[in-house]
Amino acid sequence: MKEKINIGIVGYGCRGKSLMVDVILHLYNEGVIVKAVCDTYEDRMFEAVNDVEATTGVKPFCSTDYRDITTMDGLDAVVVTASWEAHVPVILSAMKNGKYVATEVGGSYSINDCWEIVRTSEQTGIPCMMLENCCYGRREMMLMNMLDKGFLGQISHCSGGYMHDLRSEISHGKENRHYRLRNYLRRNCENYPTHELGPIAMLLDINYGNRMLSLTSTSSCAHGLNEFVKNEKGGDHPLAKVNFAQGDIVTTVIKCARGETITLTLDTTLPRAYSRGITVRGTKAAYFEDTDSVFVDGVHNKFDFDWSPQWGNAKNYEDEYDHPLWAEYKNNPTGGHGGMDGLVLKAFFESVKNGTQTPIDVYDTASLMCISALSEESISTGSSPVAIPDFTNGAWIEREPPVESKYCLRKICRDKFYNQ
Amino acid sequence: MKEKINIGIVGYGCRGKSLMVDVILHLYNEGVIVKAVCDTYEDRMFEAVNDVEATTGVKPFCSTDYRDITTMDGLDAVVVTASWEAHVPVILSAMKNGKYVATEVGGSYSINDCWEIVRTSEQTGIPCMMLENCCYGRREMMLMNMLDKGFLGQISHCSGGYMHDLRSEISHGKENRHYRLRNYLRRNCENYPTHELGPIAMLLDINYGNRMLSLTSTSSCAHGLNEFVKNEKGGDHPLAKVNFAQGDIVTTVIKCARGETITLTLDTTLPRAYSRGITVRGTKAAYFEDTDSVFVDGVHNKFDFDWSPQWGNAKNYEDEYDHPLWAEYKNNPTGGHGGMDGLVLKAFFESVKNGTQTPIDVYDTASLMCISALSEESISTGSSPVAIPDFTNGAWIEREPPVESKYCLRKICRDKFYNQ
Repeated sequence: MKEKINIGIVGYGCRGKSLMVDVILHLYNEGVIVKAVCDTYEDRMFEAVNDVEATTGVKPFCSTDYRDITTMDGLDAVVVTASWEAHVPVILSAMKNGKYVATEVGGSYSINDCWEIVRTSEQTGIPCMMLENCCYGRREMMLMNMLDKGFLGQISHCSGGYMHDLRSEISHGKENRHYRLRNYLRRNCENYPTHELGPIAMLLDINYGNRMLSLTSTSSCAHGLNEFVKNEKGGDHPLAKVNFAQGDIVTTVIKCARGETITLTLDTTLPRAYSRGITVRGTKAAYFEDTDSVFVDGVHNKFDFDWSPQWGNAKNYEDEYDHPLWAEYKNNPTGGHGGMDGLVLKAFFESVKNGTQTPIDVYDTASLMCISALSEESISTGSSPVAIPDFTNGAWIEREPPVESKYCLRKICRDKFYNQ
Repeated sequence: MKEKINIGIVGYGCRGKSLMVDVILHLYNEGVIVKAVCDTYEDRMFEAVNDVEATTGVKPFCSTDYRDITTMDGLDAVVVTASWEAHVPVILSAMKNGKYVATEVGGSYSINDCWEIVRTSEQTGIPCMMLENCCYGRREMMLMNMLDKGFLGQISHCSGGYMHDLRSEISHGKENRHYRLRNYLRRNCENYPTHELGPIAMLLDINYGNRMLSLTSTSSCAHGLNEFVKNEKGGDHPLAKVNFAQGDIVTTVIKCARGETITLTLDTTLPRAYSRGITVRGTKAAYFEDTDSVFVDGVHNKFDFDWSPQWGNAKNYEDEYDHPLWAEYKNNPTGGHGGMDGLVLKAFFESVKNGTQTPIDVYDTASLMCISALSEESISTGSSPVAIPDFTNGAWIEREPPVESKYCLRKICRDKFYNQ
């Protein structure tokens, strides 16, 4: 095991800065040393240099070309926090140059990209981990723990969404150099499936005894952004009249090999409050994020026709069902999004230090990313059902996950580390 | 206008009795006279006779053969509250014999049945109304009123479901002679789409300037009923091991001509509390039934990351936005389901008395019913997109609804009766 690891960061927009300042620089004393930073924009690159120097007293190497980072001697890992379109070239280059790679969330633009990531990881032996922080969310991990303990029974269905009013972020994309604007202008798909699908995939043993078989995706019309811009900037603003390709609501339905269904909703351009809307439906109990409530068969049936007295009851289950990792971690969480950001990065860096497989592996990463390109295909062909590739080439049928890490999210690991 | 109308009831199971005892017999003084009753089971038929006699003092005609009712002289209308499979023959026979017909909710078994209903109504000039009580629900009508007043902006998406734990009703179907059991054993589809889709169709102007173009439908595995029976009656009970065809959760996504999407969820065999889960997403505001809350753009944005303080806020909008029909009716509602049953039957009987078109017409009825057969087709062909027939044969493009009734649910009627 390495006591210290040297890492590089590629991409220093909003997300890169947040992970750096709120998490990574806090891990300096745990041996995570930022040796290199990169952004295509010089101002952002220098901001990264300054942020690192302010904490560590040492200026990191910097470049506007990611290849200077991925080929750099002495780096153990690269963290990719660039725009969606930039993820794959950096991921591939990092693996080819022998560096562990973690990529921020984002969907794929082609299935071929997903295969390239998988094949490159197989050929090089280098792990690739999507930093799907929501896999480490407190409620999400409580659900994994409930499932392990038999509290939920058998699961038939899960749903979730990325339901986040991004009208301001998107419409100010030009001045903020934000990739979302150009994507929303030209592209129509489930562009951000992983925050809900990541934890659902863990619950449903995707790639370990189960897999996602096919999906359909359907998009609504696009009214939200035009009206937002018209109200904010007037009807003469170019974005008030442009045809946004991206529909306001995209609904994607996935069918799994074991028979479960998963419904995903992308909902980012109409007024609403934030939610990932996680719903898990088992034969013994259900969880509903939108009311943060747990329905237990045989206990809550008397509330059949008015559930409102139980809204918010999930907190009553924390003492018994919080995941052991959270039972400890909740007292001192690191980083944004309630501490998930800290957990997902600790999980990655632990694997880098130990030279082991990452808890979210390359097959998980490809399975999560591929949904965007497939949803684009389904929408563009009238909601046709589209097959989801088996990136494991059959190994999922009997595959067992690595159990080296307490951060591993698979049932076999959860059982080994927490349920013995 | 007729002061009095004579009606017959076909089907006297749970629903027939509820409509009779809770609503229809209360309308006796308003000139609705039950002259005939029918059920294939003699005991139920006599129960109907007794219920009518107890209120009116007069025994109605009775038969176990619906044709005795649909061909009976002197009847103005027939109300069909029989099993799902029995609806269409009674509907067709009633129209062919010159009687207004109202049918309880239920999905179709074939698209041909839907066309037959439409063509028979066109040829005979006799209206056919689905008794979709939820079209007259208080919240649903408040949403119509909010839409009319511009409060919601433009709508991009609606969703809803029939989310009702029916495990006990279904698994006791044999002793209760309930049609659901045989349907759940053999058939897999969105078998009950209309409670949510009825009001959504009114909001989205379906068949009047808009129409439903296509759908996909995806079913989960079926675990709920087996496990319920095993726990209740033991693992040796035949229903504990039988393969139920009906999946626990069926998700259907509909695309409309104007671009809106509609998501329907059938959710009847897993533990949960009742909900129709109506969600309406406009450019200015949203409604979420599961938290009975309204999100208004520019007002509620500060609750972006914690919506819970606003859970249940929809009641604050009742004074301003309750539909005028409800503002009056709420003080003295008739019948079950919070008064919706009373409104939908009053609407039907008013049309019968006036000899006018019914507020939910034969095109609406066929459009709502057809979803079941189409979802069966989509599920059985791997969630293929399936075209939804245009039962108006193009008339929807410029069709204007009748405006004779204050119960009419179309925007043009709502404007004429309430918004001038």
